[in-house]
Parts: sequence; structure tokens; C-alpha cells
Amino acid sequence: VRFRRFVAGAIGLALLSGCATVEPPAVTGGAAAPPTLAYRIAQSLTTEVGPRLAGTPREAAARDWAVRTLKDLKFTHVRVEPFTFQGWVREREEAAIVSHGNQALAVAALGGSISTPKAGITAPVAFIASYDDLLLAPPGAYAGKIAFVNDRMKAARDGSGYGIAVRKRSRGAIEAAKRGALALVIRSVGTDNTRFPHTGNMNYDKSVKKIPAAAVSNADADQIERLNAMGMPVQLKLTLKTRAVPNAPSGNVVADIMGVEKPQEIVLLAAHLDSWDLGPGAIDDATGVAIVTAAALKAAGPEMKPKRTIRVVLYGAEEVGVHGGDAYAKAHASDLKNHVMATEADFGTGRVWRFASKASAADLPFFDSVAAGLRDLGVERGNNESSGGADIAVLGKAGVPIVGLTQDGTTYFDYHHTANDTLDKVDAAALEQNVEVYARVARAFANR
Amino acid sequence: VRFRRFVAGAIGLALLSGCATVEPPAVTGGAAAPPTLAYRIAQSLTTEVGPRLAGTPREAAARDWAVRTLKDLKFTHVRVEPFTFQGWVREREEAAIVSHGNQALAVAALGGSISTPKAGITAPVAFIASYDDLLLAPPGAYAGKIAFVNDRMKAARDGSGYGIAVRKRSRGAIEAAKRGALALVIRSVGTDNTRFPHTGNMNYDKSVKKIPAAAVSNADADQIERLNAMGMPVQLKLTLKTRAVPNAPSGNVVADIMGVEKPQEIVLLAAHLDSWDLGPGAIDDATGVAIVTAAALKAAGPEMKPKRTIRVVLYGAEEVGVHGGDAYAKAHASDLKNHVMATEADFGTGRVWRFASKASAADLPFFDSVAAGLRDLGVERGNNESSGGADIAVLGKAGVPIVGLTQDGTTYFDYHHTANDTLDKVDAAALEQNVEVYARVARAFANR
Repeated sequence: VRFRRFVAGAIGLALLSGCATVEPPAVTGGAAAPPTLAYRIAQSLTTEVGPRLAGTPREAAARDWAVRTLKDLKFTHVRVEPFTFQGWVREREEAAIVSHGNQALAVAALGGSISTPKAGITAPVAFIASYDDLLLAPPGAYAGKIAFVNDRMKAARDGSGYGIAVRKRSRGAIEAAKRGALALVIRSVGTDNTRFPHTGNMNYDKSVKKIPAAAVSNADADQIERLNAMGMPVQLKLTLKTRAVPNAPSGNVVADIMGVEKPQEIVLLAAHLDSWDLGPGAIDDATGVAIVTAAALKAAGPEMKPKRTIRVVLYGAEEVGVHGGDAYAKAHASDLKNHVMATEADFGTGRVWRFASKASAADLPFFDSVAAGLRDLGVERGNNESSGGADIAVLGKAGVPIVGLTQDGTTYFDYHHTANDTLDKVDAAALEQNVEVYARVARAFANR
Repeated sequence: VRFRRFVAGAIGLALLSGCATVEPPAVTGGAAAPPTLAYRIAQSLTTEVGPRLAGTPREAAARDWAVRTLKDLKFTHVRVEPFTFQGWVREREEAAIVSHGNQALAVAALGGSISTPKAGITAPVAFIASYDDLLLAPPGAYAGKIAFVNDRMKAARDGSGYGIAVRKRSRGAIEAAKRGALALVIRSVGTDNTRFPHTGNMNYDKSVKKIPAAAVSNADADQIERLNAMGMPVQLKLTLKTRAVPNAPSGNVVADIMGVEKPQEIVLLAAHLDSWDLGPGAIDDATGVAIVTAAALKAAGPEMKPKRTIRVVLYGAEEVGVHGGDAYAKAHASDLKNHVMATEADFGTGRVWRFASKASAADLPFFDSVAAGLRDLGVERGNNESSGGADIAVLGKAGVPIVGLTQDGTTYFDYHHTANDTLDKVDAAALEQNVEVYARVARAFANR
């Protein structure tokens, strides 16, 4: 209730004054919280809803929050497009180095992992330096052991270290099981040096025995690595309890600012509403929600009368398999030809530094001109091979023109998928640069 | 076993070469581990022993480690001076904001806290901006509520923010109980913005009802603070299970490098062996153990023949009430007159920047000359009112001359008493500066 007053008050002032910079009553966090609309949206979602794992009542609460918030902000046709998926929840997770005094490890089950037996799995560690080494090992190499894969992710502005590092999380359990391992434990896919384990989705293969899979924090992985380097055999105990949730409910929240000339033509701004369960998902992806919501309003201007419809889609169940992205594409299959552009914000709050695209040859000059209009914000022109992001990639494949606005992800993987992804990690100034970039892009396409 | 070879190999080379910089086989952690003796000692204690709460088998393992290590390093008269104390262990701790979707909080029981009832305590929060505000509240002010004390510690080179901030941890449960609170929850006494709660000892007063007491991380405290600032009533659930351990065993590990001219006169270098249970206690106080051990050897020189005896005391049960400090003073009461100087390392690995003291007027010129000999290492002369540190303060009070070497503690309270106090937080270069400073001081007093 109080939030409605906050945000509605803020945007009300914005509408009256014709600008989106407003001065509502200050809410202080650790640092003084900047009072911009985008910051307030991220603050409200992370503080009032908090963690919101897909398929759980917390994601449902996030949808309720989103519907309320978008209505308060004068979006129209605000609705939930429901779907279900195969859900998963963690119930208990423990790990310890038992060979050296029962040292508890900071551990997180990977999303989708099966449970261990109730008494846990206690076994020697097969120390595997990297996922590539795992792939090179022969069948049976890890029989009776817990496979520990140690490679460390490299930080990069474009997040390019993630793709390589995430292979062990995504397919490590399959490849370790093929080689006889009892369980998989990985060094977290993340660039911090803390004791926060990073969770994230993992996969099984129908033809390979399922084994439990978990990540330990980087600092805990260091501990295992050091013992190994000292020549000391390491024994781990791993206990996971997880639960599959068949037909878990989720949904995409869709909201429009109707176009006045070509209302059927849609400029789509995407982010995802769900978060991992370990933390409140500030940079993944409350700030994405904040960026696209604030940018849509800014693009529409105080009159709220763009030529084409500006649509915000807050996707459900992204983290756990991009189910929302698939659901939207399916529900709107017949209408995708009317989507004139789609873009997504799902990489934290670093400043946008690159405008990539996926446009037809005929359309490229227009895309180039939009990119050129972002130069004063520090944005360079990228290539024309952008996927756009997890939720909208399916749209791009179906022919929807894509803009990929690359944010600076240098520190993104310090917090991503951890308990430590909290509001204080948000760079408020960079958040506003994002809003301005997304707003200019949305405005250009909406009023083309 | 492997460690013996490592450290003994290192110091063996050092003895042969007459210098303490050696190049044993590299052990890599997250970053390449510098191969100095001090670093190796900190590495060995944190990696092979890990967390070592006073009074538990893990502290006993640390004593075994210390005896083995000090003997390997050619100290003599290596012995344990045992004592017992009233111990405490944590068994379970959980907290959540239940008024806004059951958001789990990162929480740690304060050391010594009683348990909550098994079902936990669920109650509205009385939001208290600071410990000073708590003291100003009238009796009954927090009846039926969980008192939440929010003041944030300020980082400072000399750690001076700690004394003020720690009052709420030390006496908050007493003062909150006087005012009717059901439990105390504090913002962690620490300067980070993570989700690691900081533990630490707390006190009860015999005349006041005991209530459970815990700390939430700074990021979690922000969440409570924001909800409060938004005008939203917060309800918390707190569940603690702890256990008192009567007559818990501990001990001080004492080791000497015997003086050749005045063996009965002792230069005492102190650190503590125990750590809090949440993490492996790298900067609190494995690095102190490493600094004083390496410095004693460096001061004694390759011949190991100082004029006076250089003694290393690795105290037990410091964190939980400075029991080791008291036990040593008691056991050596008749011998304290022979202690010509005591100094302590228990503030991480920041560079030493100040030499303070507690010396007689007659001795001051000599202390000044020792301080002057540290100027090239960036050390300034402090005052003559140093306590020396927690474990040796009792010696200072009994008349033992004290040197207080103040380390740069700017980031110390980011990690102190948390799970995140791991080896990667150690600044290897600063560690060596510490060793050199402590060695020069020890040498000056030993060979005076």
C-alpha cells in the first residue's frame, strides 16, 4: 500500500512536471538511496518481495507486485499470461571437508539437482583442474569419487568468461556421471572471492545416470585446491535435499503503453521477474525490471502517446529454463510479425557500452542511426549478430528485429545467483544511464 | 606430514642461507601463494585445521598443529599450558522477515547467547536507530518485541569505530531485556556490505533476564531499515539453538628460543590460536600466529642465539573471553618480572603504521630508539599508553613493558568474525612488513 503511494507519487510528479527526475521522500538504505523511479522500483521489488524463485508463492507475489506497480504507473492492459513448468526447490544443503576436521563448506545445490541419499555422500575427491580435463578423462576415471571441477571464471566487461565457465555447471553432472562419479561439486561460476556459493541451472541427460550436483564458493574451492596442491587427499561429505515440483505455476506480466498511430505494432522491452532463491535478486534482475519499466515511461513521454505500442514484458521462470520466453513466443506466435523491435535488460546495472542488433539489411541504416544517437552516452556500435538476451532470443530467431544493449558486466558475476545479490550492489548512476539508453532506443522505434 | 616437510624445508633453507626468504615448491590458492614462511604458516593453519572454536576438538587440533609446527621450526620447550573455561557452541540459527514473504536473513547467534524456545520467537520489531537510543528508552519500551539495533560501524585505520559499535553486541541484550524485549537482533558489528553476519561475544547480567541475541548481516539490516523507513511494520522470526559447555578444555601453546646470556629474561610475542567458528580465521588470527612465529625466528637469526629468550605464546580461548591471557598471567605470576617486553599481533595483516608503548620513564629513551628504527618501514611513534592487545593487557597491568604495534585496520572489520575470514583476504606483502617490524622489535629487546 505504501509502495503505491511512493511510486505513483513519483510518477505523478513526473507526469505533472514533464520530466522523470523527481524528489519523493527519501528512503535510506545503507547509503542514501537515490530517489529516481528506476531505483525505487528495484528497491520495492527487492525489499518488499525479496527472493522470488520461479514456480513458488514468492514468484506469485512478485507477479502481484508487478501488476500493481505497472497499473499504478498508468500502463494499460496489464495482465498475467500464465504457464506451468517443471519446477524445483532446494530444501537442505550441506558439505564439509571431512578429511581435515569436518570443515563446513559454503555450498549450494545446482538448480535441478537430485537429492543425495539422506545420510549424504562421503567419498574421496577426484580433483579435476578444469571442465576440459573432465572431458578428457576416460570412463570409470571417477568411480567411487566426488568429482570436483576447479576452473575459475574470468571477469570481463562483456561477460564472455561466463560461457566457458558455465559449461561445468550446465553439463558437468552428465560428464562426471559418465565417468563413474558419485556426485559433482564445482567451484562456483562467479568472479568473487567470498564464501557465497553461486547457484544456477544444471542439466541431466536421459541416457546417463543422474548424480547430485552442487557448487562451493570460490574461497571454499581454494581450500580444496590448496589441500590438493599440498598432496593431501581430500574427502568430502555432501548432503542435498531437493524436490521436484511438477506443473509449477508461473506467468509473464505484460503491460502496454498504447500507440496512438499504429497501436498494433509493438516495441518490446524485456526483463525477468523471477530470481534465484538464495537472495533478493537485485542485479538479477530487479534492475532489469526497473530499467525497462522506467525507460518505457520515459520513452512514451509525459503525454503517454507514442506512435507505436511500447510493451513491457516481465518474464517468469527465466532462471530455471527460460520458460517465460518460450511461453510468450508461443502465446504471441501469430502476432510476432507486429513486433517491430525487442530488447532485454538482464545483466545488472553496469553502464551500457555497446549497441548490437539483429536487423534486416534494409533496416540496418535505421538501426545505425539509433546507435549513433547513443554516442554521447558512451555507447559504441556493435555487430548485427545479437541474440538480444535469454528471454527474447526466441523472438529474434522468429524474425523479430533485435537490439542488444551490452551492459558493463565486469562485476556482475561477483554477485549473480548468490545470496549477496542485494540492493546495495546497485550503481544508481549507472542505472540511470541504462534508463536513458533504453528510453532513447524505445522512443526511436516507437516513433519511427 | 606433508606440512612438516614444507615448513621445515622452508626454514631449513632459511637457516642455511641466513635469510628468511626462501623458494619452496609453490602452493597455489586462488592467487599464487607467496612462499614466505609467514604466509605458509597462515596457510597451513587455515587450510589444514580451519575453524577452531575455543573449547572444541578443533581448537585441540590447532594446539596439536602448533606444537608440531613450532617443534619443526626448532623452537624449544614447546608445551601446552592447559586451562578450562565455560564454553559455548552454536547448533542452529535461523531468522526471517515474516511480514514480507518469509525472507530468510543471514544471521549468527552472538557468542554466549541462550537459545530461543524451540519454535523460535516471532514478534514485531522495535526499530532502534542506535545503541544510544536503546539506552534512552524507558523500561517496558520494547515489551513483546524483538529489539533491533541498527547503528553501523565506521571503518578507520586504527579500528576506532569498533569500540563504539561493539557496545550493542556486548551489552545490548542486557539493556534490551531491561526494557522488556523478547530478543535482541543487531546490525552486525562490521564494515562490509555483504550478507555475512559477524559473530562475537556478548554478555549477560545476573540481575537481568537473559534473552537470546543475534546479529544479521549488514545487507539484511539494510532490508529491515528500508522497510522501517517505508513505514512498513516488520515482524521477525528468530530461532537459535546454542549449548553451554562447562569446563571446556583449552590451553596456551608456549615455545621458546632460548637466550644465551640471560635466558631467564623473556621477550614475549603473542597471538591467539582459536578462531570463531564461522570461518577459518585467517586474519583473526592465523596471520597473528604467522607474524609472531616468523618474527621470532627472524629476530633470533640463523644461529638461534639471542641474548634473552624470545617466547612465542599462542593463546587459547581469546575470542570467547580472553581466558588464555588470564591463564598465562596466573600461571606465570611469579615470573612476570622477568618479562622484559610483551607485544601482540591480533589485528589482521594491514601494515604496521604506529609503535605505541607502555614503558617506565627510565625505559622510554630505549623504546623511542626502537621506534626510530622502524621509520623506514612507515612506522610512526605513538603514545605511551598502549594496552598491547587483548591477551597481553593483563601483563601490562602487572607491570610488564608493552609494545603496541598498530596495524592498518581499514578493511579488518570487513571480514573479522565472519565466515568470509579466509586466506585470500591476506595481503602477503603487508604480512611480510609485519614480520619485519615485529622481528626488529623483538631483536632490539632480546639483544638489548
